[in-house]
Amino acid sequence: MRTQVAIIGAGPSGLLLGQLLHKAGIDNIVIERQSGDYVLGRIRAGVLEQITMDLLEQAGVAQRAHAEGLPHDGFELLFKGERHRIDMHKLTGGKRVMVYGQTEVTRDLMAARAAAGLNTVYEASNVSLHDFDSQQPRVRYEKDGVQHEITCDFIAGCDGFHGVARASVPASAVQLYEKVYPFGWLGVLADVPPVGEELIYANTPRGFALCSMRSHTRSRYYLQVPSDDKVENWTDTLFWEELARRLDPAARERLVTGPSLEMSIAPLRSFVAEPMRFGQLFLAGDAAHIVPPTGAKGLNLAASDVGYLSSAFIEHYRERSQAGIDHYSARCLSRIWKAERFSWWFTSLMHRFPETGEFGQKIQEAELDYLVNSEAASTSLAENYVGLPMKL
Amino acid sequence: MRTQVAIIGAGPSGLLLGQLLHKAGIDNIVIERQSGDYVLGRIRAGVLEQITMDLLEQAGVAQRAHAEGLPHDGFELLFKGERHRIDMHKLTGGKRVMVYGQTEVTRDLMAARAAAGLNTVYEASNVSLHDFDSQQPRVRYEKDGVQHEITCDFIAGCDGFHGVARASVPASAVQLYEKVYPFGWLGVLADVPPVGEELIYANTPRGFALCSMRSHTRSRYYLQVPSDDKVENWTDTLFWEELARRLDPAARERLVTGPSLEMSIAPLRSFVAEPMRFGQLFLAGDAAHIVPPTGAKGLNLAASDVGYLSSAFIEHYRERSQAGIDHYSARCLSRIWKAERFSWWFTSLMHRFPETGEFGQKIQEAELDYLVNSEAASTSLAENYVGLPMKL
Repeated sequence: MRTQVAIIGAGPSGLLLGQLLHKAGIDNIVIERQSGDYVLGRIRAGVLEQITMDLLEQAGVAQRAHAEGLPHDGFELLFKGERHRIDMHKLTGGKRVMVYGQTEVTRDLMAARAAAGLNTVYEASNVSLHDFDSQQPRVRYEKDGVQHEITCDFIAGCDGFHGVARASVPASAVQLYEKVYPFGWLGVLADVPPVGEELIYANTPRGFALCSMRSHTRSRYYLQVPSDDKVENWTDTLFWEELARRLDPAARERLVTGPSLEMSIAPLRSFVAEPMRFGQLFLAGDAAHIVPPTGAKGLNLAASDVGYLSSAFIEHYRERSQAGIDHYSARCLSRIWKAERFSWWFTSLMHRFPETGEFGQKIQEAELDYLVNSEAASTSLAENYVGLPMKL
Repeated sequence: MRTQVAIIGAGPSGLLLGQLLHKAGIDNIVIERQSGDYVLGRIRAGVLEQITMDLLEQAGVAQRAHAEGLPHDGFELLFKGERHRIDMHKLTGGKRVMVYGQTEVTRDLMAARAAAGLNTVYEASNVSLHDFDSQQPRVRYEKDGVQHEITCDFIAGCDGFHGVARASVPASAVQLYEKVYPFGWLGVLADVPPVGEELIYANTPRGFALCSMRSHTRSRYYLQVPSDDKVENWTDTLFWEELARRLDPAARERLVTGPSLEMSIAPLRSFVAEPMRFGQLFLAGDAAHIVPPTGAKGLNLAASDVGYLSSAFIEHYRERSQAGIDHYSARCLSRIWKAERFSWWFTSLMHRFPETGEFGQKIQEAELDYLVNSEAASTSLAENYVGLPMKL
């Protein structure tokens, strides 16, 4: 088999890249280790920046997000028992975010890809990448016991943190930066109306809590838990009780509980691999970087990588220009590090860190106090939350 | 002896308080453990907020600061080898800071106090505070071997971190918050023209450096050094060589070196004692809180404490109102914690922290990159640097 771009991974980044390339007439194949159902079963983020929405539109898959997504103009910070609204729409001169689950984005992209009759190989095992330092890289994999090989111009590694793409690069060629946080997020998805119209980020003496949602009838809640906590230690009742304790009385009163559709604990990690290009191999999304989920930058960063990468490939094929390809890694990393900074900061501000003690807690409260009372500081938070510009 | 307000400590806070009270017709005595020359020998900060200048004016001691001080409209951040100017005058709608040494402030206040013929007891030993939980507190001290006692309405503890005032309060009545940083500042004062018109804060792979000044002919430079470094390990030559290494080539070329008038190492610490009022005893300045020197908030915070405290006493005597007295601690602490937050943040942003590793360094660079490119973030830095409003 031969294609122009071999895309490893059929998560939202790989599928979005495939769709953007297809729209530009660039042939591509997506190779995924898991089944489509497995990919759809992963519950992930649900807050899309305008930049991500723009890319979905460019890919022709934004209709349902526009119809069913919830545009949000602000969010709330809860600390010292009181909620304070950040009016990001006003502070950023009219920007907003769209609440629409990553699962739905993936579903829309899968449907569009199927409708266009594009080649997606699910359940490909033993995927391996070859010769990406040459002009003719190859991807090998097995499917139903048969060995396949794809030759291509470029390989896009969109296969996540544990994927084969970054692992195919010699360790000496990659610089890794990492921070692991001393806690995780216990998440519950439930078909109950959300506690508020907007997201609530809560800094409480019992730890962080986040009230999020997927729709007017489906809520997503999170609790900060110790790193070594286990989902087996929790029941729906315990979860709802603990969440209620971390809310202000007015929110507590509005809280509607119900059986969880999903309950899991995710660790929090900051991670960046540099560079993001190795010859004809390009990493995008979680394959190259992880942010802690506070502020919902993960999917959005993956989308902006894909935005840069699709532009680079389109430039290459249309204009025979190497510029986008040569600048890909630096362009991505400049934006990624700013989002890493924001996610680290917002995580540090909102969670209890046992090791910083009472001084750390007072500093958090002082910063939150300052944040909601200073227009400059609120604007800085808001402009990061809606997403910094891409500057192509 | 009897007075209305007994002031412990003849540093800038104690003397400023004395002068403000005197202007309002409130009798006061200042008691100082050291000699006047000793107090003047302490080399401290040199950047005054507008709020501090306003208080010096109110006290009638701002003439020389206006004549000899250097108004600064901006400062520079040096990182990744390049300097970026923060135009605080523009970003804050016209605010600036005044570069004028703390030693000179103290000198002006001493002269004004002497001119007004006010009572200042220098070299008072065994100072002790009594009955400040009653309506008739007393201060005892020895001078030239003779025991003295002052009865008063109020005691103001302006005697610094190691002073007797905070130490007189039962430990159980005070909550302490503290953070010690894993480095110190090696400072040099020299009669050489400063390397630039404005201050330069440098984040470098070799550690932080600060180029400050006292006048057009007197410079003040600092280098981040390990906590366990000793001033005996340094010579003037070693200092200038290391400073040069931490500057960009253009600044390095302009650097004029010369013999040091003073060289010392100061540890960096964040510290807050809560509350700041105990009956008729009030703490102000370093007696209640310490900030790391990055951003020069120490003297300015002391001045704003004194501003709140003088207002409270004036209200008490003129209007028989307890409001200012009752709100003193909360008012101060709200502003103090924001300045503690700012000083901690600016320190964390600019210094090398061995324990945060390469991830921490990349986050610093990303934040600095963001800071100089975002008007909101630059404005937040600027508004803190010129001083947050006092809101009386």
